[in-house]
Amino acid sequence: MLKSITIALNQINNRVADLIGNSALISRHCKEQQNYDLILFPEMSISGYPCQDLWHRHHFVNQSWQQIQQIQSFIGSNSCVMVGSPQLNGNKVYNSIALIDNQQIKKVFNKKSLPNTGVFHEKRHFTPANTISYFSLQGFYFAVLICEDFWQKSNWLLLAEQDVDAVIVLNSSPYSFEKQNKRQNLAKNLVEILKKPLIYLNQVGGEDGLVFDGNSFVFDGEGNKILQMSSFACDFAVIKLDNNGKITIDKHPAGKYIECNLANQYTATVLATRDYVAKKNFTKVVIGLSGGIDSALVANIAVDALGSNNVSAIALPTNFNSSQSFIDAKNCADNLNISLQTINIEPIFQQFLSSLKQQNLSQLATENLQARIRGNILMSISNSTGALLLSTGNKSELACGYTTLYGDMCGAFNPIYDFYKTTVYKLATWRNANNCPISDFIVVNAIPNNIINKEPTAELRPNQKDSDSLPPYPVLDAILHELIEQKKSPQQIKGFDEQLVRKVAQMLCNSEFKRKQASTGTKVSEAAFNLDWIYPTKIFWQ
Amino acid sequence: MLKSITIALNQINNRVADLIGNSALISRHCKEQQNYDLILFPEMSISGYPCQDLWHRHHFVNQSWQQIQQIQSFIGSNSCVMVGSPQLNGNKVYNSIALIDNQQIKKVFNKKSLPNTGVFHEKRHFTPANTISYFSLQGFYFAVLICEDFWQKSNWLLLAEQDVDAVIVLNSSPYSFEKQNKRQNLAKNLVEILKKPLIYLNQVGGEDGLVFDGNSFVFDGEGNKILQMSSFACDFAVIKLDNNGKITIDKHPAGKYIECNLANQYTATVLATRDYVAKKNFTKVVIGLSGGIDSALVANIAVDALGSNNVSAIALPTNFNSSQSFIDAKNCADNLNISLQTINIEPIFQQFLSSLKQQNLSQLATENLQARIRGNILMSISNSTGALLLSTGNKSELACGYTTLYGDMCGAFNPIYDFYKTTVYKLATWRNANNCPISDFIVVNAIPNNIINKEPTAELRPNQKDSDSLPPYPVLDAILHELIEQKKSPQQIKGFDEQLVRKVAQMLCNSEFKRKQASTGTKVSEAAFNLDWIYPTKIFWQ
Repeated sequence: MLKSITIALNQINNRVADLIGNSALISRHCKEQQNYDLILFPEMSISGYPCQDLWHRHHFVNQSWQQIQQIQSFIGSNSCVMVGSPQLNGNKVYNSIALIDNQQIKKVFNKKSLPNTGVFHEKRHFTPANTISYFSLQGFYFAVLICEDFWQKSNWLLLAEQDVDAVIVLNSSPYSFEKQNKRQNLAKNLVEILKKPLIYLNQVGGEDGLVFDGNSFVFDGEGNKILQMSSFACDFAVIKLDNNGKITIDKHPAGKYIECNLANQYTATVLATRDYVAKKNFTKVVIGLSGGIDSALVANIAVDALGSNNVSAIALPTNFNSSQSFIDAKNCADNLNISLQTINIEPIFQQFLSSLKQQNLSQLATENLQARIRGNILMSISNSTGALLLSTGNKSELACGYTTLYGDMCGAFNPIYDFYKTTVYKLATWRNANNCPISDFIVVNAIPNNIINKEPTAELRPNQKDSDSLPPYPVLDAILHELIEQKKSPQQIKGFDEQLVRKVAQMLCNSEFKRKQASTGTKVSEAAFNLDWIYPTKIFWQ
Repeated sequence: MLKSITIALNQINNRVADLIGNSALISRHCKEQQNYDLILFPEMSISGYPCQDLWHRHHFVNQSWQQIQQIQSFIGSNSCVMVGSPQLNGNKVYNSIALIDNQQIKKVFNKKSLPNTGVFHEKRHFTPANTISYFSLQGFYFAVLICEDFWQKSNWLLLAEQDVDAVIVLNSSPYSFEKQNKRQNLAKNLVEILKKPLIYLNQVGGEDGLVFDGNSFVFDGEGNKILQMSSFACDFAVIKLDNNGKITIDKHPAGKYIECNLANQYTATVLATRDYVAKKNFTKVVIGLSGGIDSALVANIAVDALGSNNVSAIALPTNFNSSQSFIDAKNCADNLNISLQTINIEPIFQQFLSSLKQQNLSQLATENLQARIRGNILMSISNSTGALLLSTGNKSELACGYTTLYGDMCGAFNPIYDFYKTTVYKLATWRNANNCPISDFIVVNAIPNNIINKEPTAELRPNQKDSDSLPPYPVLDAILHELIEQKKSPQQIKGFDEQLVRKVAQMLCNSEFKRKQASTGTKVSEAAFNLDWIYPTKIFWQ
């Protein structure tokens, strides 16, 4: 007899540690989905991810688990629900999934493989399960993998021993460059072995530096992708599995899947910025708009994230700033439909110089002073208006220390802190030609060409150019990429001037103290400062 | 026949990631100690501790291990040396000890128990050994425990199965409150079981937030402590073990052991400050001296750490600052024999207010503005003079957000960031009555009584008192201690006004974003911000 089961996939955006808010969100979905047999939510859907040391607090873990009682009453009598939460068992905390059936916790599945590299510290928080878990529902037999369980191929051997009808993978898997391809290739490999459907459900949303990209998907037993859910947006789908192994889409209101790498990176930081602001209970941001490429791109990202009404820009010139810079900033602000105020910092700068006459400030000190006056003004406006300050230093600058601590590094969040300068240009060009898939702001070419084409300068002294102190960005970024992402030592880097490589490595080491006090920002690489990149304050290369 | 073996204990202060410097230091000691049979160095003596993600870089790990070749040539032909380094084996990195004999690596011991809580992330870095290790030398049989191996009682069962002559414990164990008692109690328990001598060697020195306290010791087989090495200072000792199990001191130039808890905490932060400055290749520091207790204590710590010549103080008054504040600051500076410059920030403050007239700055913004002008001036002086800026916020303030980001939080290092305000008072009183054991600065009562006795105020508006916005510090600190160190939820805290507890918890949550961008400082507790305390930017208590 042909039997089938319906499975609902909830690609939700929850909020770290907001137990009551998250359980209300889950309850709402359960209530709306009473017609489906099995309703899935991502890993750690109740607590959010990552809760870090909150997961050590037994009161927090228990409070999270107790939310299941609230959720139960919203579940239809014919539905089963799988929901993620930390769980205390004796003195041990597990990364668990509860299977709720008939208003009761029928089964609990614990994560076996705890990731502990990059941004993951799960061995700090959880006890691993001994094995992976399975359950039966209406005659269907499922394997349950919790995120890293799926990535560890040793677990595949265990799976192959069981005759499952489908594999369910529940995730809180953050975006990084090409991550979606890696996931899908892995899923394809696993399906080739098992010849069974695979259901991959991820959460979506920004949490401090991390951004979960959603991008949930389903493969059938032949390795065809039958469902692709939205990138960087909430989504909902229902699939139907029958006892011949056939799996089909039952319901999927059109989602938006993003394939292009630049589009992915841009959209990632829009979502990360939007959620950072919203999840801290803010609505507005303020940006120092210099007329340079970095702040122009951040302004465009902010408008895509929050809308023009919620973004304001401040130009903070000194006498070193060219009038063209202001024109570029003004054009950019106009294109983005955001307000631009100008506050000339020269009188304040001169008053500092006068008050500090006896200190004989060095050239470096006077350059930093200008950046810090700007930081001070922007923070004053932020404090007065309740708008979060976004900082705008790119990864090349942060890597070299070409930024001023307590100056241009001021800010709650930095949308471009994991983008090298060369990528900043690519993203500006991309955004000028394309709209952002998750934004209502439908304007292209907002960043004036002059901003993209002119030579980069910090304008902290007359005729200053970045190229005075830094190698050309394509060279710099290539060297940095080998030092940072590829984890090479200076000696291992070939094809560049040796002395230049050593100089860049030295700049990277000498500026770690600045990055230690930097705001967080959108992670897009596998080596985002302070997230994947955890080093002593002074790194030595010998 | 009575045989004996001499064992040299090197309580050294190395430097994180300075492979060449550390191996030169170790080589020097080996050369001087050619008369001893077994020469011990602490865990990770070549690489330093903690190297964090440098331990992931195979080139770094190999370079560290290769230093052993350099060291070998300095070892006497009758000596064996035990030295710590990361070690690459296949693709796995171990936390290892090399036993060098006859200019060769005779044996390698790998750490079995990898600590992964608090400030430790060793499961991120290392592969664990399957078991603990033993070796024979001149007919003596030793067990080797590497730090956490000693703390895990499951390992004691393994030890008890072997008939060792002595247990050698090699450590990089950072100081925290009462840690030394915990170590010695544990050692006593283990000796009671084994009835064999135990040799505990620790390193000494500050590394970013951590401070290793040395405090190495030796117990005989009856559980008597026969050797206690210095607290917070390098030290050297030789012990003699004979084949009747008798263990005696062969050589120990007088060390200084510190028992008093306040003395320990004060000395910890003096060493941490001294080493932070020196290990980043600086010599001088600058401090904003307000006339309040926090900056006065930091100034005294800085002078103890670096000497009066290397500390300069700046008073940065506005019209809100009382003349008494300046007199107190001046007296303190005079007592400490440090220079005090005064820079009135009022003209700069007024210029900011004038330039920002149209922004209608809020009261909060104008208060923060003053703190940020001070930060800006101090950083300008730091940039111009090459003196590191020390920040002076205490743990109570940091916990409540009673600090200004980019203002008084500016600085490379904060000697008191893990001391609650009530402890700040205790330490000031203690230091006024006692000299610091590791300092040449022999002056007591440097902190004027008026500073200790007056009511705390930030002086950011007329007649402001801390008690306007905060509960009395003894109450505040007691609540914070339960929330932070004891990891309680607001609901679990009894004996205080419920509303007050909730308010304090809320302040703690709301200010996490500030702490994320704070400088590091001396860890003395088991919950030092950013080190043991790793939380989402906004923590929820529900």
